[in-house]
Amino acid sequence: MSLNLNLIPEYKTAADFFRAHDNLLLLVHEKPDGDALGSVLGAAHLLQKLGKTVTLVNDDPIPDKFRFLPMADRFKLPEEVEGKFDNVIAFDCGDKRRLGRSGALVADGANLLNVDHHVTNDRFGTENLVDLDAAATCQIVFKIAHQLGLELDCDTATCLYTGLLTDTGGFRYSNTTEEVLLIAANLLKKGVAPYNIVDRVMETMTWPQVLLIRAALDTLGRDESGRIAWITITREMIESAGGCDEDVEGLVNYPRNVEGVEVGISFREAAPGKVKVSFRSKHVVDVGAIALEFGGGGHARAAGCTMDGDVDAVKEKVLARVREVTAQPEAGAGA
Amino acid sequence: MSLNLNLIPEYKTAADFFRAHDNLLLLVHEKPDGDALGSVLGAAHLLQKLGKTVTLVNDDPIPDKFRFLPMADRFKLPEEVEGKFDNVIAFDCGDKRRLGRSGALVADGANLLNVDHHVTNDRFGTENLVDLDAAATCQIVFKIAHQLGLELDCDTATCLYTGLLTDTGGFRYSNTTEEVLLIAANLLKKGVAPYNIVDRVMETMTWPQVLLIRAALDTLGRDESGRIAWITITREMIESAGGCDEDVEGLVNYPRNVEGVEVGISFREAAPGKVKVSFRSKHVVDVGAIALEFGGGGHARAAGCTMDGDVDAVKEKVLARVREVTAQPEAGAGA
Repeated sequence: MSLNLNLIPEYKTAADFFRAHDNLLLLVHEKPDGDALGSVLGAAHLLQKLGKTVTLVNDDPIPDKFRFLPMADRFKLPEEVEGKFDNVIAFDCGDKRRLGRSGALVADGANLLNVDHHVTNDRFGTENLVDLDAAATCQIVFKIAHQLGLELDCDTATCLYTGLLTDTGGFRYSNTTEEVLLIAANLLKKGVAPYNIVDRVMETMTWPQVLLIRAALDTLGRDESGRIAWITITREMIESAGGCDEDVEGLVNYPRNVEGVEVGISFREAAPGKVKVSFRSKHVVDVGAIALEFGGGGHARAAGCTMDGDVDAVKEKVLARVREVTAQPEAGAGA
Repeated sequence: MSLNLNLIPEYKTAADFFRAHDNLLLLVHEKPDGDALGSVLGAAHLLQKLGKTVTLVNDDPIPDKFRFLPMADRFKLPEEVEGKFDNVIAFDCGDKRRLGRSGALVADGANLLNVDHHVTNDRFGTENLVDLDAAATCQIVFKIAHQLGLELDCDTATCLYTGLLTDTGGFRYSNTTEEVLLIAANLLKKGVAPYNIVDRVMETMTWPQVLLIRAALDTLGRDESGRIAWITITREMIESAGGCDEDVEGLVNYPRNVEGVEVGISFREAAPGKVKVSFRSKHVVDVGAIALEFGGGGHARAAGCTMDGDVDAVKEKVLARVREVTAQPEAGAGA
């Protein structure tokens, strides 16, 4: 298969950086996700193939579900590393602040390559490869390997497939482009076992997470029109499940995904008297505009805000407004 | 992109059939799923492009979630069609019986092309294209188009993408091969909007389905080792949710997907005194062997059986045996 990749000129810059420097510090943002870890570990494998020494550092421990990634055991906390580094590559990180304490390991005047795909990236590197057409930083690292003319082994491919999967929601989001799937196909050819990765990073739930789905669904409600549905998550529910705030992520999709529903909402008690409201819509209602009215923001189909008050009061206020907007003729037309 | 497809000789047979015949009856199995509908509708578009007249027939109404497929409104019930057809193509159907009442529209001595990927296919056609390496019949139809040298339009691509998605569990199952993703990439190039399809066919749940998730999770249990988890679904739960037996499909994945769990089980009351048991395992326990002991069968990682008794009695019996097997040293090693 001849791969027809869109290689902007900065790919050459990045490939030259990979070749030119040694004793590299490799960083990603704190609280690393699948794409951050997949991209930095994929790159670490490539750099080792080029004969380079790499040091992997992050502020946070690697989440259990990503520990299977080859070389994930090589990560150190910044406190465990001595000295500063003159050659650094940062992956999947929009600005220097998100490197956290690990950022202090970058020497003054260091060569810093910034490899990322976020539109908010502030070009903090001395060299920058920011490819906004990429769905994942793992896609960028694949293209760097291509630019370098390096063959990928199964370990490298496993790392890169992981980030492609997680940043496209399992090839579901609208950022799933032809290039994403071409690269994924190429990675499978290297021996990646897709189901094993999916199982670990997308499907496995902790016991507190499944208890929180149960508790949240016990609060599921919808309005008489069937076009608005919601769930509520209190501190007490999170605590009695033994979970944490992150465990609640994605639960808003349960009300959102119900047939006939246009707006799905989750109300999460963030602290006593503070409620985090997450909105999702399907076709017509601009939930970004609604969130903005309540001091938050976001996109037309996914938005959020944090409001003062107890859960019931916030719920009443928000549902009244969502009902109004959803009942407007232009929100009833379908699209 | 040059597509490197594995075209066995039967692809030429099928392409010749597409070219040679007109006034074609197109059939799929009863209770059609995403791959059956995607493949037959994709082929219908191709045949129209070749100037052929096609008649689409199925015993069952098209499920709501697949009605967006271009030409889905063309399906007729067998009772609505007069006469018999001399030229017929059957898609995604392992044997003639599964065509149901619609099979009666096939004239004696008709030319019948059988296009399928199931290992159980009994080659009931006068011509047979049974490609066991294909994850989906939609993959086969794509390759027929390639053999015919036909360009796909967006409508055809949308049909074929749908079946690729549903038969690979959204590119998650182990049948997700390099060729599957290459074809999916090619379909995106034709203008398919992947998220819209995913949303309709994979993510949307009916209100009874979400109520049944809730009810099933209220019964979630696990053993003291944390390696076995289960849910229970009674007739009363299905009825009070306003659902049906099909709505319960896939719920066994909730216990199965819990971190640390090796065997996930669902107990569904199929009728008074009859319990359908579904097993899923992750790495080591052969649930096919366990199901076999109870008069059922299946694979090592997915199996089932139907047992006599009330739910509590069946649960006790099955859990005792699963506990024994899971506690064996070879089931504790991980794999």
